[in-house]
Amino acid sequence: MNSISEQNSNQEKPKWRSLMDHYSWTEYPLIVSAPMRLISTAPLALSVSSNKGLGFLGVGTDVETLPALLKSATEGLASETFSFELGSVPSGILPFGVGFICWGADLQAALDIFKQAPLKPAAVWLFAPKSNDELIRWVDGIRGVCDGRTKIWVQVGSVVNALEVAKTCHPDVLVIQGSDAGGHGLVQSCSLMTLLPECADALKSEGFDSISLIAAGGIMDGRGVAAALVLGADAVCMGTRFLASPEANISKGYRQDVIRANDGGNNTMRTTVYDSVRGTAGWPKDYNARGVLNHSFWDHAKGMTMEENKRLYEEALKKGDDGWGEHGRLTAYAGTGVGLVKSEMAVAEILDEVRRGIRMPV
Amino acid sequence: MNSISEQNSNQEKPKWRSLMDHYSWTEYPLIVSAPMRLISTAPLALSVSSNKGLGFLGVGTDVETLPALLKSATEGLASETFSFELGSVPSGILPFGVGFICWGADLQAALDIFKQAPLKPAAVWLFAPKSNDELIRWVDGIRGVCDGRTKIWVQVGSVVNALEVAKTCHPDVLVIQGSDAGGHGLVQSCSLMTLLPECADALKSEGFDSISLIAAGGIMDGRGVAAALVLGADAVCMGTRFLASPEANISKGYRQDVIRANDGGNNTMRTTVYDSVRGTAGWPKDYNARGVLNHSFWDHAKGMTMEENKRLYEEALKKGDDGWGEHGRLTAYAGTGVGLVKSEMAVAEILDEVRRGIRMPV
Repeated sequence: MNSISEQNSNQEKPKWRSLMDHYSWTEYPLIVSAPMRLISTAPLALSVSSNKGLGFLGVGTDVETLPALLKSATEGLASETFSFELGSVPSGILPFGVGFICWGADLQAALDIFKQAPLKPAAVWLFAPKSNDELIRWVDGIRGVCDGRTKIWVQVGSVVNALEVAKTCHPDVLVIQGSDAGGHGLVQSCSLMTLLPECADALKSEGFDSISLIAAGGIMDGRGVAAALVLGADAVCMGTRFLASPEANISKGYRQDVIRANDGGNNTMRTTVYDSVRGTAGWPKDYNARGVLNHSFWDHAKGMTMEENKRLYEEALKKGDDGWGEHGRLTAYAGTGVGLVKSEMAVAEILDEVRRGIRMPV
Repeated sequence: MNSISEQNSNQEKPKWRSLMDHYSWTEYPLIVSAPMRLISTAPLALSVSSNKGLGFLGVGTDVETLPALLKSATEGLASETFSFELGSVPSGILPFGVGFICWGADLQAALDIFKQAPLKPAAVWLFAPKSNDELIRWVDGIRGVCDGRTKIWVQVGSVVNALEVAKTCHPDVLVIQGSDAGGHGLVQSCSLMTLLPECADALKSEGFDSISLIAAGGIMDGRGVAAALVLGADAVCMGTRFLASPEANISKGYRQDVIRANDGGNNTMRTTVYDSVRGTAGWPKDYNARGVLNHSFWDHAKGMTMEENKRLYEEALKKGDDGWGEHGRLTAYAGTGVGLVKSEMAVAEILDEVRRGIRMPV
């Protein structure tokens, strides 16, 4: 059996090395934190990047929050908390990325902000456009204002979409999201076990093997990182695992629910119920979201009207942290790996544990 | 980063070695063929075992077929086709396993057959009992008539079920089935990415770390095998990949459909529609089955009555091999990895390619 590094040494430059040349402060294998809307703010993004990963700010649909997010992250870079070795960051770029949910985000507003910024984000992660034409406008727009300093990342969840995006947008990175992922993703999908190798093969056979592949969905620890790498990933993304870090901008009740929940195949589900009770509208119909099952879901399944379910959700909101949990109703978006999150842990500790847990199969 | 073999060398005897001591003709990592009902007959089972894997006969619910299946497999052992080194098989055992779908299989009839058989199967794989009590009767019954020569394998699809079976049945092996698997499995589940490590951790923490774990669901090639091993498997099972071997007992139309289909997250689905059109009744309600999408499914989704759908299915049956495919209606149970099956290939070639494709992450 040959190792992947041996295999790569036969190539002029392995793909993961090209990727990491741009993110020169990072350590192999590259670990990325997902741009979770409302959750991935400066503390999470900077903690991941300052621990040799790549953190993302989760702007999502809320471009009006981008200036404040960029400001606090840029100021944070200079703070003692993150003791960032700025010398190791290529000039002109910010050592973190920014994630957008395209269908609901104002492209022109985002472009205006990036245009004025003296430093550009290391990556822009684009997800869930209403159409491929909309995605192309985002890609062209970002490329136009960021002078090649910002790598274009596009998230996909199927082989056909991976090929379409590769052909029409020529992204630097495709984030391949499997069905175990928490939060939003495709209604109809499969896991990284088969999606990742089939995407890798299909892209290679169509001549797109220079695009880096980032695996997302169900990666919780060193075992998941190793699995993603052998399945064909150049780097990995984690979301759910970081929810239990104090750096994630979530309520204590949400965090406790993530730590409490286990057996994610049984106790999480892809559904639109949580979007509905929260009043989130506008997601394209081929998306739903995975969350920990609770009474909002079970009552919906038993036939409760959405009006009543929303009313009870509003009631639960008033309870604060007690509104979450197995007796609660508030939404804890999380992936099927939620049972592998056992305790609150700082980002630095998580990354250290994950890296030490990477094992080879033989 | 440490390798799994280094890690294991610190233990007195690694778990996968104990497992393989019983299957002394096999090669590490152990590759198993799934006991697919009607499909896994003597040619597939013996081809896998004679190529240093472990093949299974798929008796399923049809215990009346067990005597003929055992007879043809036992006779096959002596044939030139399989050139089996019988000296390498422990005395008293048959170098293949037998799989049952418990809810619909006649336990007493199976026990009578095994009792009379001079050689016992190397493993009995139990799946989908109506209750845990029924499973316990199967386990006790098989143990009673097979004199310790037959290892007890039980298939599960959740952490809670893995723990329940470990505590009440003390199986030798748990087959951990993820959501990417083809054919029957749990309606509500997740993939091996998270199910396997959480099961491994939960079993270990409850003192059941001597039970071997076999990964099933989405393993298509060496990349999948490597991923399963790093996620915590002691060995792996493949089903869909073997459908395209001439040794699988399926129609040409079914085989061609498996080779044709791709992008399994989009083009396969877990559903009860295929059972319904085929007139298969009796599966416990927490099970459904994954198959390649075709007009039986799409018409059902558009609201066609099951009566009309069944009638059209019967019509399609008359077309033979042409009844399958994207314009067809006949069922091709298959996993999400169907897009990684590119051509018809003999079992020996499949196993050789899979083993050569196992790569380490670094």
